[in-house]
Amino acid sequence: MTLKDLKRYPEMSEPQLRPRYSGVATFFRTPLVESLNGVDIGVIGVPFDGGVTNRTGTRHGPRAVREQTTLVRRVNQATGVTPFDLMNVADCGDAFLEGPYELIAAHKEIEDYFAKFKAANVTTLGVGGDHSISLPILRAIAKDGPVGMIHIDAHCDTGDDYLGSKFHHGAPFSRAVEEGLLDPKRVIQIGIRGSINHKDMWKFSHESGMRVVYMEELHDKGWKWAAEEARKIAGTSKTYLSFDIDSLDPVFAPGTGTPESGGITMIEAQRMIRALDGVDFIGGDLVEVSPPFDNGTITAQCGANILFEILCVLATARAKRK
Amino acid sequence: MTLKDLKRYPEMSEPQLRPRYSGVATFFRTPLVESLNGVDIGVIGVPFDGGVTNRTGTRHGPRAVREQTTLVRRVNQATGVTPFDLMNVADCGDAFLEGPYELIAAHKEIEDYFAKFKAANVTTLGVGGDHSISLPILRAIAKDGPVGMIHIDAHCDTGDDYLGSKFHHGAPFSRAVEEGLLDPKRVIQIGIRGSINHKDMWKFSHESGMRVVYMEELHDKGWKWAAEEARKIAGTSKTYLSFDIDSLDPVFAPGTGTPESGGITMIEAQRMIRALDGVDFIGGDLVEVSPPFDNGTITAQCGANILFEILCVLATARAKRK
Amino acid sequence: MTLKDLKRYPEMSEPQLRPRYSGVATFFRTPLVESLNGVDIGVIGVPFDGGVTNRTGTRHGPRAVREQTTLVRRVNQATGVTPFDLMNVADCGDAFLEGPYELIAAHKEIEDYFAKFKAANVTTLGVGGDHSISLPILRAIAKDGPVGMIHIDAHCDTGDDYLGSKFHHGAPFSRAVEEGLLDPKRVIQIGIRGSINHKDMWKFSHESGMRVVYMEELHDKGWKWAAEEARKIAGTSKTYLSFDIDSLDPVFAPGTGTPESGGITMIEAQRMIRALDGVDFIGGDLVEVSPPFDNGTITAQCGANILFEILCVLATARAKRK
Amino acid sequence: MTLKDLKRYPEMSEPQLRPRYSGVATFFRTPLVESLNGVDIGVIGVPFDGGVTNRTGTRHGPRAVREQTTLVRRVNQATGVTPFDLMNVADCGDAFLEGPYELIAAHKEIEDYFAKFKAANVTTLGVGGDHSISLPILRAIAKDGPVGMIHIDAHCDTGDDYLGSKFHHGAPFSRAVEEGLLDPKRVIQIGIRGSINHKDMWKFSHESGMRVVYMEELHDKGWKWAAEEARKIAGTSKTYLSFDIDSLDPVFAPGTGTPESGGITMIEAQRMIRALDGVDFIGGDLVEVSPPFDNGTITAQCGANILFEILCVLATARAKRK
Amino acid sequence: MTLKDLKRYPEMSEPQLRPRYSGVATFFRTPLVESLNGVDIGVIGVPFDGGVTNRTGTRHGPRAVREQTTLVRRVNQATGVTPFDLMNVADCGDAFLEGPYELIAAHKEIEDYFAKFKAANVTTLGVGGDHSISLPILRAIAKDGPVGMIHIDAHCDTGDDYLGSKFHHGAPFSRAVEEGLLDPKRVIQIGIRGSINHKDMWKFSHESGMRVVYMEELHDKGWKWAAEEARKIAGTSKTYLSFDIDSLDPVFAPGTGTPESGGITMIEAQRMIRALDGVDFIGGDLVEVSPPFDNGTITAQCGANILFEILCVLATARAKRK
Amino acid sequence: MTLKDLKRYPEMSEPQLRPRYSGVATFFRTPLVESLNGVDIGVIGVPFDGGVTNRTGTRHGPRAVREQTTLVRRVNQATGVTPFDLMNVADCGDAFLEGPYELIAAHKEIEDYFAKFKAANVTTLGVGGDHSISLPILRAIAKDGPVGMIHIDAHCDTGDDYLGSKFHHGAPFSRAVEEGLLDPKRVIQIGIRGSINHKDMWKFSHESGMRVVYMEELHDKGWKWAAEEARKIAGTSKTYLSFDIDSLDPVFAPGTGTPESGGITMIEAQRMIRALDGVDFIGGDLVEVSPPFDNGTITAQCGANILFEILCVLATARAKRK
Repeated sequence: MTLKDLKRYPEMSEPQLRPRYSGVATFFRTPLVESLNGVDIGVIGVPFDGGVTNRTGTRHGPRAVREQTTLVRRVNQATGVTPFDLMNVADCGDAFLEGPYELIAAHKEIEDYFAKFKAANVTTLGVGGDHSISLPILRAIAKDGPVGMIHIDAHCDTGDDYLGSKFHHGAPFSRAVEEGLLDPKRVIQIGIRGSINHKDMWKFSHESGMRVVYMEELHDKGWKWAAEEARKIAGTSKTYLSFDIDSLDPVFAPGTGTPESGGITMIEAQRMIRALDGVDFIGGDLVEVSPPFDNGTITAQCGANILFEILCVLATARAKRK
Repeated sequence: MTLKDLKRYPEMSEPQLRPRYSGVATFFRTPLVESLNGVDIGVIGVPFDGGVTNRTGTRHGPRAVREQTTLVRRVNQATGVTPFDLMNVADCGDAFLEGPYELIAAHKEIEDYFAKFKAANVTTLGVGGDHSISLPILRAIAKDGPVGMIHIDAHCDTGDDYLGSKFHHGAPFSRAVEEGLLDPKRVIQIGIRGSINHKDMWKFSHESGMRVVYMEELHDKGWKWAAEEARKIAGTSKTYLSFDIDSLDPVFAPGTGTPESGGITMIEAQRMIRALDGVDFIGGDLVEVSPPFDNGTITAQCGANILFEILCVLATARAKRK
Repeated sequence: MTLKDLKRYPEMSEPQLRPRYSGVATFFRTPLVESLNGVDIGVIGVPFDGGVTNRTGTRHGPRAVREQTTLVRRVNQATGVTPFDLMNVADCGDAFLEGPYELIAAHKEIEDYFAKFKAANVTTLGVGGDHSISLPILRAIAKDGPVGMIHIDAHCDTGDDYLGSKFHHGAPFSRAVEEGLLDPKRVIQIGIRGSINHKDMWKFSHESGMRVVYMEELHDKGWKWAAEEARKIAGTSKTYLSFDIDSLDPVFAPGTGTPESGGITMIEAQRMIRALDGVDFIGGDLVEVSPPFDNGTITAQCGANILFEILCVLATARAKRK
Repeated sequence: MTLKDLKRYPEMSEPQLRPRYSGVATFFRTPLVESLNGVDIGVIGVPFDGGVTNRTGTRHGPRAVREQTTLVRRVNQATGVTPFDLMNVADCGDAFLEGPYELIAAHKEIEDYFAKFKAANVTTLGVGGDHSISLPILRAIAKDGPVGMIHIDAHCDTGDDYLGSKFHHGAPFSRAVEEGLLDPKRVIQIGIRGSINHKDMWKFSHESGMRVVYMEELHDKGWKWAAEEARKIAGTSKTYLSFDIDSLDPVFAPGTGTPESGGITMIEAQRMIRALDGVDFIGGDLVEVSPPFDNGTITAQCGANILFEILCVLATARAKRK
Repeated sequence: MTLKDLKRYPEMSEPQLRPRYSGVATFFRTPLVESLNGVDIGVIGVPFDGGVTNRTGTRHGPRAVREQTTLVRRVNQATGVTPFDLMNVADCGDAFLEGPYELIAAHKEIEDYFAKFKAANVTTLGVGGDHSISLPILRAIAKDGPVGMIHIDAHCDTGDDYLGSKFHHGAPFSRAVEEGLLDPKRVIQIGIRGSINHKDMWKFSHESGMRVVYMEELHDKGWKWAAEEARKIAGTSKTYLSFDIDSLDPVFAPGTGTPESGGITMIEAQRMIRALDGVDFIGGDLVEVSPPFDNGTITAQCGANILFEILCVLATARAKRK
Repeated sequence: MTLKDLKRYPEMSEPQLRPRYSGVATFFRTPLVESLNGVDIGVIGVPFDGGVTNRTGTRHGPRAVREQTTLVRRVNQATGVTPFDLMNVADCGDAFLEGPYELIAAHKEIEDYFAKFKAANVTTLGVGGDHSISLPILRAIAKDGPVGMIHIDAHCDTGDDYLGSKFHHGAPFSRAVEEGLLDPKRVIQIGIRGSINHKDMWKFSHESGMRVVYMEELHDKGWKWAAEEARKIAGTSKTYLSFDIDSLDPVFAPGTGTPESGGITMIEAQRMIRALDGVDFIGGDLVEVSPPFDNGTITAQCGANILFEILCVLATARAKRK
């Protein structure tokens, strides 16, 4: 399907015309395309969970999030943004893995998949999958030089080797800094909490100069302050937005691999992302939705709504760059 | 069963005497009556979901809410109100629909059912069912002239025609204003949020003069402020209280047709309703509990507790009018 | 997407190449097409549940069945049939309803949708939706003269008016006979059981000459006998195959509107359909999967596997006609 | 409510008139009565689970079974029996326990409750609650001399003292024989299976002369044979029918305290009870439905359908005695 | 297993070495010991729910909490405390009840079990079971004189006789004061809310001088204030910490016997307990987790995290006393 | 813990003494041992799911099965066997994986773990984990020469390379034959069914001379015939018993990675295994229980009961060899 097709099927993103429970479930009911021709923002599933350390299941995340995005409508009522009017948004299918058993090779496949979007100047919004996928995505889209990152998560994910591997969902960002994909001074990590194995679990974050906002600080100072702090850290250069669903309190996101009590509420998360509007986002991801551990579909539903907020700030950032 | 019977079965609303898990599940374990003789407040199921636009199931709402109200005890600990002492409260069964397939005729049946209560001077507390039922209820109880309304919901429900019908659960209140049942200047809508299909989705609310409190304003200013604002808008005349369970955040109310992330918490909702005590409420409803989409029974449980709060303010309002 | 596209994406129906959990969930991971050009068998969702008499939710059936069909592989191991090799099979989306609130008009929309397939000589396999949809489908595909029907169900669905309507999911086949779409002498109904409202509930079936196989007879004589009987009744002329998921015992199909204890097991149902191979099937449907009432996804999973069996006998029937 | 009331509300047991999802959930939607005047068969909840040895929750059984019986219609299609025409059937509420903590006293309360029905010549159909309730029920209704019993269960329930008590849900029938309430020669126990603590676990059954049909024998010889054997053992004198839901395979009845793999299927159970028609049943019970352990509502649903079958054979037995 | 064994299996409390999903589920993956030799803090299951007034199931609490504690790691990130380094912590199995049917005798067994720990100078952390177990635990560990108590709960649990018993899960603390185990002037109860049976339901608390912090006061003043207040009331003498999981809002703890809408959030509870560090805690318990009513495993998960917070303040208190 | 300890804790496998819901959940409540001294049969968890091709989660299988085995009592009522009297049975913990990310290395770790049992002459009963674990287990226990195998499964698991690996849960037995661990002429595979990717999917089984009993043959001829056939194929030499839970119909085992409709019922499976008594079993496994996909706990419960049957035939086989 090409851009021409996009024009032919306006009803796919036009909820007034079709009840939201009907039709094949693509991301936000946007067209499922094969050609990147004319696409501005591509939403891409990355059904890979080979990097988890405990509970798996995020390989089923993209489908579950797709299903719940069909409930999302066109306009962001809080901000007035309509991403589908600003940009041509498309469901670009799933990153295709030929060798899911081998972690390093699998990451290479994901990198190659996203590299095609980079080459076609399509902004990508990845839907995991476990958090280890952020590393190959950054390899694809930050290869021209290190970018900043606003990272909302219960864990810094800047760990060390674990269970015999240096690549896993607890360590993508230490690797990304080492590979020159992230500028740690322009990285902020928000919502960090939970019991840890060692006192210096996240020393990489601290020593490399990342700004770590623990949950307690966020709880004390509020979402508005956190967004301000994030804008300050990220600055005006290119920035990536990575949202781990386990940043939310487990009542909002039971369906995830490593839930940590005492997290962010949905309204805080939504408003925090909206307040990031204006940052020069060049890509983003939503990770760690694990449907087999979900309760009803609340996690996927929250994921879909967070994805919409990310889509909105990606759309306005790209519109501004034009 | 008549009032005389009511006196014969005091234990039905006497939790100390009967364990709460025993007996047939009526609303708050009040007697199930057929005659309105001597009844002050009638709680009425309206198992109708013919007006939904997406996910159905609210026809099963009244039974699920009944079951959960059996866990509620006699006294509102926060306010000291005991509605069962102030008023004769009874479970008046379900509004009986002979033709549920036909939306307009079904609404007429609901109207007729509630009209009997109006005629018998019984205050009604409806339990939906989808929100479209508020229209026929208002037709029955506001036929003497427009009333005010405190409306807690994620949606204004003042929409336009949809899918070929002007009557559906997204539009009862535009219709109610047009029919002279509501005075829009005395209507406040609290908790509005979520993505929308068109930017001017709720223009009817704004143009008719309703006070729309979006979720962001509520989140910033708090439940106490919102209750004050509501009392100011409603004033001292007759007022209806309509509570859509989807005003709550979906973690409290997953079992509803159109959940919207980032909503009201239960403690905020409870305290907001308690703070409305003194408003001249002449009726109320709790709508949109959809058991098939519930997760455990949390939605019905929250619904039951909200219903108790509404019952308390209806009881004190009626006591004051006497 | 056209036939040409079909050839471009062979991997979509090639599970060896892509893990089954990846990609957008179309029926059997076949291509989602817009043009009927070159399509032999179209699988079509009919997300309509406006005709139910008790529990709703089948409007969500097509998506849930799609999701589970992604677990089905290419070859029917028991029979050796590979429908995707015999025929070009495609996911043809959902029947598009503009007016779902009005039962008669909605049926007309469904009829019009299927009529296009009939005109293009595409064999249709409908996925409901409630059983009332079989009537408009038959109107579309049996308009040239009455067809036979093998109907597997817990209910005859040849009832009378109910709740003010002559069209509902308990009556499609009395209407279909009256309209000359079905030849009752060539109709067999298998699996009938459950409590009934009146002793003469299914007198239409008996008086019109349909062969009614009650569950007890099936339980006594077995699936092989039943298949033989069905072949005898259906004969060698055009026959429709309608499978109501509630024919299965509720442990296999809890997610349906009117479950009836003591039904068919999956292995009996699968083998019965396989044994119907050779009947001149010209269309089929699978109805009454109601995801909100499902337990896990067992109903949708059984539905997907039954759908595969129906697809196989449709494919061999069409292959024979060529 | 009295018999006169019964006549006033014919629609309560008339499904054609009222949709099955509406109204307060009484057993089979029969009237909830306080007076036994004119009642022939009383269905009575016994929400007591103080006698369980492992998993509790059967105190919630009566409400859950009530809810599911609202799905049952009027006529038994397989036998043609309409119990509601043969007899005045009523929901007689729950046996009221003032002291649920004390097992022996609680049993006395249950006995007293059922004794009133015996005195009023009302046939009782108890809905548990755990199996220990059969003992006090038998004390009430078999006080004139020992009766026979057809007992369908995974366990003989003729155990010894356990955890310091001689009264618990694994021992009602050894006690009943000792108290002269049951004639062991006229007792048959069908479906016995599962691992046991001691080889001579059920020696009381064997030594007292009860006929024990282990699951293996039933599986080999079939339901029809078992029903014949039961009729032979029970003979033509007064007989009690006790159905423990755990006799069913756990896929049909996960919601029970002591599930045992490899049990009876629903269709076998239904047909077995139907084949008992003609036995002189003077009472019955359905026990051990434990909603907190249910999966969806399958156990309560199967319980409701079994209850209907028991009601039918109680009704024809009483009709015959008249 | 003895202390020597403890040293032999360091990996059991060393998550880095073993994935958290592996191994038998003991509390926090500590060794399961039989001898108290060398143990400082013993975590003990009390699988007893014979004292509940409505919904049971807490007998299954200890296993469910054990399972979820395996997800907890070694270090409390917020406070830096590592209880397993400060103290030898062990899973001491379950309090063994020989006569669970008899409430008073069962309490005696629990008392005897805990008395052995008291005698061996082991600090106990009990995991219920229903709240009635706090009474026998206090009998064992407060026999030298009354202690203070910080009690976080939705209910004061200082009720009167109920259903014929003075011992039940709504009354342990009135009994404890009467028996001289608690100094009511040093007792604070936090989070009290919900409907009540009588206006003077908790008069024992008020009249005996306990400090009752209703949920409204907590909601207005915040967790930090509440912790301050608690420290003030508890003072510097020996204090017990009792946490009823129903103090949490039901979205965090649906799996409990008497959920009350509008409760404490997890982050508030966690931070409140952390802020109690320094109080001279001599024991604690976590009660009322009822797995059969849980939703997913959210309640057990919250329970496990609260248990970790309690363990941390018990460990630092004991370390200080050394 | 040593054999001496075993004698010290007789109550751990003595249900009459301890309620089944109490205590830490070990397999069948046997002692958790570290030393193999005196152990005859060791039950071992293998929490590894790195070899799955679609849905994961079997790493959580051992804990879930442990929990459900606590419901199993001492004596097999159908056969009279008491495995705990015949043999010292112990829970030997979980196979410890240091490198779960790397499939081949992980298999080596499993092999080494089981080799210790082989060396100590302990019969092993493995609990998976995915079916790929049978390969390293066979490497450990069949290294002295090829053994026969009775293999109950929906899939032959004799596949080829898939997704870039020759080792995965669809291929352990082709590898085992190639490595000389299995004698294909003495292998029978029972219950094979489901759709397949290629017609010659299981050609390895056929070409190597294994006896493949498809589900249809089993359904036609029955469990007794199948057991006879299995005994004939296995002969009198050493034989391994591998039970994949997906051999059961998905209503019994929804919690598995690749469910296939139309499978074996529990009573058939139980009786089939019992009828294998006398075969010279030298080890066994139960695999593919995936708790995240379970529905309630039915799969783990069926798994626990199957595990008990396997334990019984292992115990009598070992007793015979003594």
